[in-house]
Amino acid sequence: MRVYELIKKKRDGGALSREELRFLVGGYLSGEVPDYQMAAFLMAAFLRGLSREETVELTEVMLRSGEVLDLTEMDAPRIDKHSTGGVGDKVSIVLAPLVAAAGVAVPMISGRALGHTGGTLDKLESIPGFRTEMSIADFRHALWETGVAIMGQTDDIAPADRRLYALRDVTATVESIPLIASSIMSKKLAEGLNGLVLDVKTGSGAFMKTMEDAEALAAVLAETGNSFGVRTVAVITDMDEPLGRTVGNSLEIKECINVLKGRADEDILDVILTLGSWMLYIADWVQRAVDEPGTEVPRITSVDEAALSEKRAELKELLESGTALESFVDFVERQGGNPEIIANPGLLPGASRMKQVHAPSDGYVQRVDAEKIGIASMLLGAGRQRIEDRIDHGAGIMLNRKSGSAVRKGDPVAVLHYNDEGNLAEVLQLVNEAFVIGPEPPGPRKMIRKVVL
Amino acid sequence: MRVYELIKKKRDGGALSREELRFLVGGYLSGEVPDYQMAAFLMAAFLRGLSREETVELTEVMLRSGEVLDLTEMDAPRIDKHSTGGVGDKVSIVLAPLVAAAGVAVPMISGRALGHTGGTLDKLESIPGFRTEMSIADFRHALWETGVAIMGQTDDIAPADRRLYALRDVTATVESIPLIASSIMSKKLAEGLNGLVLDVKTGSGAFMKTMEDAEALAAVLAETGNSFGVRTVAVITDMDEPLGRTVGNSLEIKECINVLKGRADEDILDVILTLGSWMLYIADWVQRAVDEPGTEVPRITSVDEAALSEKRAELKELLESGTALESFVDFVERQGGNPEIIANPGLLPGASRMKQVHAPSDGYVQRVDAEKIGIASMLLGAGRQRIEDRIDHGAGIMLNRKSGSAVRKGDPVAVLHYNDEGNLAEVLQLVNEAFVIGPEPPGPRKMIRKVVL
Repeated sequence: MRVYELIKKKRDGGALSREELRFLVGGYLSGEVPDYQMAAFLMAAFLRGLSREETVELTEVMLRSGEVLDLTEMDAPRIDKHSTGGVGDKVSIVLAPLVAAAGVAVPMISGRALGHTGGTLDKLESIPGFRTEMSIADFRHALWETGVAIMGQTDDIAPADRRLYALRDVTATVESIPLIASSIMSKKLAEGLNGLVLDVKTGSGAFMKTMEDAEALAAVLAETGNSFGVRTVAVITDMDEPLGRTVGNSLEIKECINVLKGRADEDILDVILTLGSWMLYIADWVQRAVDEPGTEVPRITSVDEAALSEKRAELKELLESGTALESFVDFVERQGGNPEIIANPGLLPGASRMKQVHAPSDGYVQRVDAEKIGIASMLLGAGRQRIEDRIDHGAGIMLNRKSGSAVRKGDPVAVLHYNDEGNLAEVLQLVNEAFVIGPEPPGPRKMIRKVVL
Repeated sequence: MRVYELIKKKRDGGALSREELRFLVGGYLSGEVPDYQMAAFLMAAFLRGLSREETVELTEVMLRSGEVLDLTEMDAPRIDKHSTGGVGDKVSIVLAPLVAAAGVAVPMISGRALGHTGGTLDKLESIPGFRTEMSIADFRHALWETGVAIMGQTDDIAPADRRLYALRDVTATVESIPLIASSIMSKKLAEGLNGLVLDVKTGSGAFMKTMEDAEALAAVLAETGNSFGVRTVAVITDMDEPLGRTVGNSLEIKECINVLKGRADEDILDVILTLGSWMLYIADWVQRAVDEPGTEVPRITSVDEAALSEKRAELKELLESGTALESFVDFVERQGGNPEIIANPGLLPGASRMKQVHAPSDGYVQRVDAEKIGIASMLLGAGRQRIEDRIDHGAGIMLNRKSGSAVRKGDPVAVLHYNDEGNLAEVLQLVNEAFVIGPEPPGPRKMIRKVVL
C-alpha cells in the first residue's frame, strides 16, 4: 500500500477502505506519512468528500488511536450532549446537572472558545476554584459520586484527531462536513456512552450557516453515532441570534444560575428542555434493553411524542423544585468550584468598566446577529482569536433586547463589560451593526428547527 | 496577505492574482510557507484548476525564481522543441542538429527518463564521452560554435519549479494541465528563445491519454509561450505506439544515426519533418521582424502552407545530402562524445543477452501499446522507476513489426536486449500483451493529429 495511491484515489473521487484509512492515519501518527502528504489528502477529501462508510471508518481509526472509556460498571445509562458551537451557548452548564438530577449519568468532554464561539470549559473556569483538568480516574469517580462530570480533552483521547485538526486548521480544510463529523464523533465515542444528543446549530453564529449544511451534518453525525451502537439523535437549533441574554464567561455563569433558579429566557429554556427530554428519552430506550438482558438496543426510528412530553415536564419540575440547582451545587463542589457564587454572584470575575449601546431608532428588534456579537465579545477579551490567547473571564456582552422586543430610540439595547478598552471602537461598531431594527415586529423565532434520528 | 486565505481562495474556486502567486511561491522558496500548506494549495489547484491568467502568472513567478538566459547577441533566431514525453521518442537527437544545419540556433534543455518514458539526456549519455552537464557559459559557447547544444536542467534555472515538482510528485498533483504547462514553460522560457515548437503527445504512451486532454494542454502551452512574446506552436502527435523501431538508450542512438543517414521509418520521419518545418517557419517569421528593426513580432494566427512545405523539403534535402549528419557529428564532438560511433555503432554500450518475442498467431499487427513497451523497457533497465535509479544504457527493445505489418504465427515481432534478467518474465508478458494481432489490416496511423497556434 502506498500513500501516494491513497491520495490519488481520493483525488479522483474514490472511496478508501478501512485498511487504507488505518494505514494513512496510522502512518501519519507514527511519522511515516509526512504532513504534506496528509495535507494533500485532506484537501482532496475536502473537495471530493467522504462517503458515509469512510466517515464511520475514519471516526473509528481516530477513536482507536487513543483511550476509550469503559463505563459499563455504572448502573445508570450514560448519555451526553454535544453542541457544534455557538454564541451564548451555555446549555451544557445547566443541562448536565439537570439531566443528572433525573438519574442519568452525563460524562461530558467539552471544548474551549475559538473565534466567535464560546467554550463550556472557559465558562466553568470563571467559577473560582473550578478544575476542568482531571485524570480519567477522577472523571470516573466524579461521575459515580454526582452523576455528572465535565472535563477537557486529554492527550489520551483521540490523539489522531488532535494532530489532524491542527493540520486542517492551517490548510483551509476545516469546514468539511465528513471531517467535522468524524472529528466530533471520535472524541464523543471515547466517553463510553450509551446515547448521545447532538445540538447542531444553524444560522449566522453557527459553523453551518445554512439549514442545508446543518441537515447534512446532522445526518452524518446521527448515522456515525448509531453505527457504533450509540443511540444518537441530532437536534438542529437556531443560532442566528445568541442564546439567552449573556455572552461572555462570568456573565453566562450568572445567567445559568438564574436558569437553574427558574428564571430563564424562552429561547434557552426551549433548547435545554428539548435536548434534555431527548437525553432522558434515549436513557429510557437504552435502559429497557439493559433491563432485559440479551436484548440488543435497537436504533430509534420513530418517536413516542407523549413519552417525550413527559420527560419535558419532568425536567421542568426538577428546575422549579430546586433539585437541578442542588445537582449543580454538587457538580461545582465536586470539581473544586466555590458554590458560594450561587448566593453571591459577585464572587465571579467582573469587569472594571461597562458601556451601554443604544437603539438608533424606534421600532422592533428584527434580529441580533450572533456572529457579530460573538466576534465583539471575543474582541472584548471573552474569547480567543488564536488557540494560545488568554481569556478575560469578566468580559462580555449583556443583551437587554432581543428579536421581537419593542425599542425606542436611545434605549440601552446592550451593555459591554470589559477590562481592556483596546478594541472598543470596533466592538461598538459590531454591536451596533448586530442590532437590526425595523418598523414591524418580526415573525416568531423557531428555536427547534428539526430532529434527525 | 495570509497563506491560509490563498489556499481557501483556490479551494473555493477563486483565482489568485500575480501578487498572491508571488507571495505564495516566494514564501515557499524562502521557507516561510511550509510544505503542507503548499501541498494543500496544489491539491486545491489540481481539483479547481488555474485560469489562463493564473497559469501565465505562475509560469512567470517560477521563471523569475532563477536565471534566464539572454542570447540576443546571436544573429540566428533561437528556436527550441519540447516534447511532453513518450516511448521511443528520440526526435530531439535528430531534430536539433538537423534544424541547426538549416541555420537556426537550437538551445535545448532536456530531461531524463522517468516511469515508462525515456529521456533525451540518458539517450545522449549512452554515447561514450558525451557530457550533458554544462555550465551556462559553456552551453552558450557550444551554441555559438555548432548552432546546437543540449544540456540538463541546472540548479539555476527555475528553482521554484524544481521544488514544486518534487512536492507534486509525492502528493498526486502532477497530472494537472495548468501545473504541467507552467512547469514546462518556466524552464523553456529561461532558454532565451524567439520561438518554440511543442510536441504534445497523445495516446497510451503519453501523459495525455486522450485527445481532449492533449488539446487542452496544447492550448495552454501555446497561449503561455505567446503571452511571453515567444512565438509558440503546439503540434499534437500520436504516442499510442512507440516512435520508430527502438526503445532504450543505445538502441535509440543507433536508430538516430540511421535516420540521419536517410534510413528512417515513416512515423518518426513524419514527426521530425513536421516539427522541424515548424521550427524553420517560426525562425523565418521571427527573422522578418528582426530584419525590420522596430517591428514587433506578431503572433502567428494563420499558416502559409506553401512556405511550410518548402521548409519540409529543405529539411529532407539536408538529411539526404548528409549535411544533417555532419551537423550531428559537430554536435556530438562539441559535447565530448566519440563520433566514431557513427561508423562503428558497436562502440555504444550493448546488451549481453537477447531474446525474441514471437507472434502468437497469423494476421496483422493492429497496434503496439506504447505504455506497455515503455514499462517493459524500463523493467529491462533502460529507464527509471524512481529518480535515483541507475540506467542500463545497453538495455531496451527492438520492434521488428509495428501496426499494419502482416505477421505469421511464430514470426519474431520484437527482440529484448538486456544485461539483467531479473524482470524478464514480467517483461515478456508486457511485450506479448503490447502486440495486438487481428485478421484485417488496421486503418492507417495518423502521426500528426493537430496543430495549435
